[in-house]
Amino acid sequence: MPKISHRAGVLPASPIRKLVPFAENAKKMGRKVYHLNIGQPDIETPETFWNAIKNHNLKVLEYTHSAGLESYRRKLSGYYQKYDISVTHEDIIITTGGSEALFFAMYACMNPDEEIIIPEPFYTNYNSFAQMAGVKVVPVPSRIEDGFKLPAISEFEKRITEKTKAILICNPGNPTGYIYTREELEQLKALVLKYDLFLISDEVYKEFIYDGKQYVSVMHMNGIEDRTILVDSVSKRYSACGARIGALVCKNKEIIQSALKMGQARLCAPMLEQLACEAAVDTPQSYFDAVTKNYVARRNIVLQGLSKIPNTLYNTPSGAFYLMAKFPIESSEHFCQWLLEHFEYNNETVMLAPAGGFYATPGSGKNEVRIAYVLEVNELQKAMICLQKGLEQYLQQTSK
Amino acid sequence: MPKISHRAGVLPASPIRKLVPFAENAKKMGRKVYHLNIGQPDIETPETFWNAIKNHNLKVLEYTHSAGLESYRRKLSGYYQKYDISVTHEDIIITTGGSEALFFAMYACMNPDEEIIIPEPFYTNYNSFAQMAGVKVVPVPSRIEDGFKLPAISEFEKRITEKTKAILICNPGNPTGYIYTREELEQLKALVLKYDLFLISDEVYKEFIYDGKQYVSVMHMNGIEDRTILVDSVSKRYSACGARIGALVCKNKEIIQSALKMGQARLCAPMLEQLACEAAVDTPQSYFDAVTKNYVARRNIVLQGLSKIPNTLYNTPSGAFYLMAKFPIESSEHFCQWLLEHFEYNNETVMLAPAGGFYATPGSGKNEVRIAYVLEVNELQKAMICLQKGLEQYLQQTSK
Repeated sequence: MPKISHRAGVLPASPIRKLVPFAENAKKMGRKVYHLNIGQPDIETPETFWNAIKNHNLKVLEYTHSAGLESYRRKLSGYYQKYDISVTHEDIIITTGGSEALFFAMYACMNPDEEIIIPEPFYTNYNSFAQMAGVKVVPVPSRIEDGFKLPAISEFEKRITEKTKAILICNPGNPTGYIYTREELEQLKALVLKYDLFLISDEVYKEFIYDGKQYVSVMHMNGIEDRTILVDSVSKRYSACGARIGALVCKNKEIIQSALKMGQARLCAPMLEQLACEAAVDTPQSYFDAVTKNYVARRNIVLQGLSKIPNTLYNTPSGAFYLMAKFPIESSEHFCQWLLEHFEYNNETVMLAPAGGFYATPGSGKNEVRIAYVLEVNELQKAMICLQKGLEQYLQQTSK
Repeated sequence: MPKISHRAGVLPASPIRKLVPFAENAKKMGRKVYHLNIGQPDIETPETFWNAIKNHNLKVLEYTHSAGLESYRRKLSGYYQKYDISVTHEDIIITTGGSEALFFAMYACMNPDEEIIIPEPFYTNYNSFAQMAGVKVVPVPSRIEDGFKLPAISEFEKRITEKTKAILICNPGNPTGYIYTREELEQLKALVLKYDLFLISDEVYKEFIYDGKQYVSVMHMNGIEDRTILVDSVSKRYSACGARIGALVCKNKEIIQSALKMGQARLCAPMLEQLACEAAVDTPQSYFDAVTKNYVARRNIVLQGLSKIPNTLYNTPSGAFYLMAKFPIESSEHFCQWLLEHFEYNNETVMLAPAGGFYATPGSGKNEVRIAYVLEVNELQKAMICLQKGLEQYLQQTSK
């Protein structure tokens, strides 16, 4: 047999991949598993979206323009306007999920073997897209002790080489829920100007911002429009992960042309969902208000639950629907597996994402977990008690 | 401004890209343009598909498994069974269009700078996926004079180097409509065994086979299951180009694992269309019979039209909905542009795809065009007269 390439084989696995069989096994044994491990919201997709799916009158499901339906892009530019982001439909390429926008951005900005600096912990698949684009991820650590604020600019500078071409941030952050301040973005602006870098910002959680915190986009920064790329997606916004609709937004025409070339190769993003997303731009604010209220209540339950667990460090997220917690344990991978394999409380257990997979620096985050609060409050309350009991029992057993 | 990568910029443009503004301009002048240039069928997407889109009862549009909905994959394995292709759902990865399956296949099989041999003329975007995967396309010419049959195996062998890793064919062929015979596939089988290569086959047009010709898939070849990859798509099958649903089918577990890793990075293919495609597996044979009958009638009109044009060579396609024609001209690019810019017959003109873009060998195909017969027969009849008059007038003018 011919040898396959090593390349895809070494793409990083999802942090929970190894745990899935244990969760399945626990369920087979009749145990209830609270899933705090996933980024799939349980919120209903808005009616605006579903109605467009049901009420179209297409006869032939045709390709769209490779940049996306012009009518959708025009409407989307109005949507960004509400966030004080001034772009036209020509600054937008509709992509197959935020995933594709990330790949297009990396491939368009960078030559093979060039480097992209990313604050860690970060979304695991950034590694995958970097590898598929043939570029190298250089992590710069942010710390749970600091609430995952932007690492000192000197830490970025230490990592800048002749090969450095871009910086990638996630704002609000997955897996941290941290929201960068205007000051932090100003620091990044100065940095990318000083070293002539691109600044890519994954802002797919921008609808989920709490506590009156302000959303500052890289698109709000003046003077770096030529080097700024916004990665967007409807997956979380409309709880429409399965739609596979995202966007690459950029005022640099060369980048847009480059992304369009890649877009032309793969023809287009799914048409029906583009129509639905166009309609969903009119989703009433009350939908988002209700969702945000819901997530704040959920977050508070998680924070309350964690506050009762001794010797545990965690951050208070102001956005997205994740937070990180650091337990007094050696290995969160071992702990998370143990919860599924050997623990039950009232015949229930809890599944968490071990945080090691969100770090690129070996050994980092090994006693941390990511908690996604994507369950109803009642469920979440029980899940947090389960986690507390689980950790107690785990610590007793491992200290023996 | 930081320099963008050269990589995306050099992705090949669609063969008709340059002509689009001329077509738009002709239309602005009130001229009717017959589009024989595109691969977007006008056939209606079947009811089975649309009903599933309208009648789902989802509340949350969730991610699917990264390999695709298991129920769809199971049903798809039954679909392949009807073609005497014996695969299980575990041999199938649902991809975002055939496009993604092509990229996954190239990336999984090949290391950077390795080579893939492709008979030309071929689908332009093969070049794009190869470039995005960092591998090199080596064309092996097939000839209109031979009806685009498989090039002699010695021609393949001449091009095999230490870097050769795979052969890619399209069967039935775009842009040729040629269908490989069992003998030709046996020759390819011997070749990939002799040189230890992968064999990737794009068979997205397999529903469109005429004249009682037999469809022989690479999946029918015994003894090369470990090196054979089938690329499939619903775009043409259900006239659902905008669905973006394809498949990578392979019995080599390493390849499947590798494709799945890439699949996990981009999460999943669009969910609703997976549901719709699952339902569409039950599309009655009468739908396909009617479509095929329709395409045969259309093809015959094109053949009849071409037979009246002097000094023109063309092939008789037995599949897909394209054929190639070679005119007594210097440059089909110039001719196609002229048709849009300077010609009209009864205030109508015709748009064709210059064939140069389907060849990787410089200078090849420059007096050829691809004709897609995706218009109703009455329209097609008028389009062919238009083409005949156009060529007459063009030859008169250019011979002056």
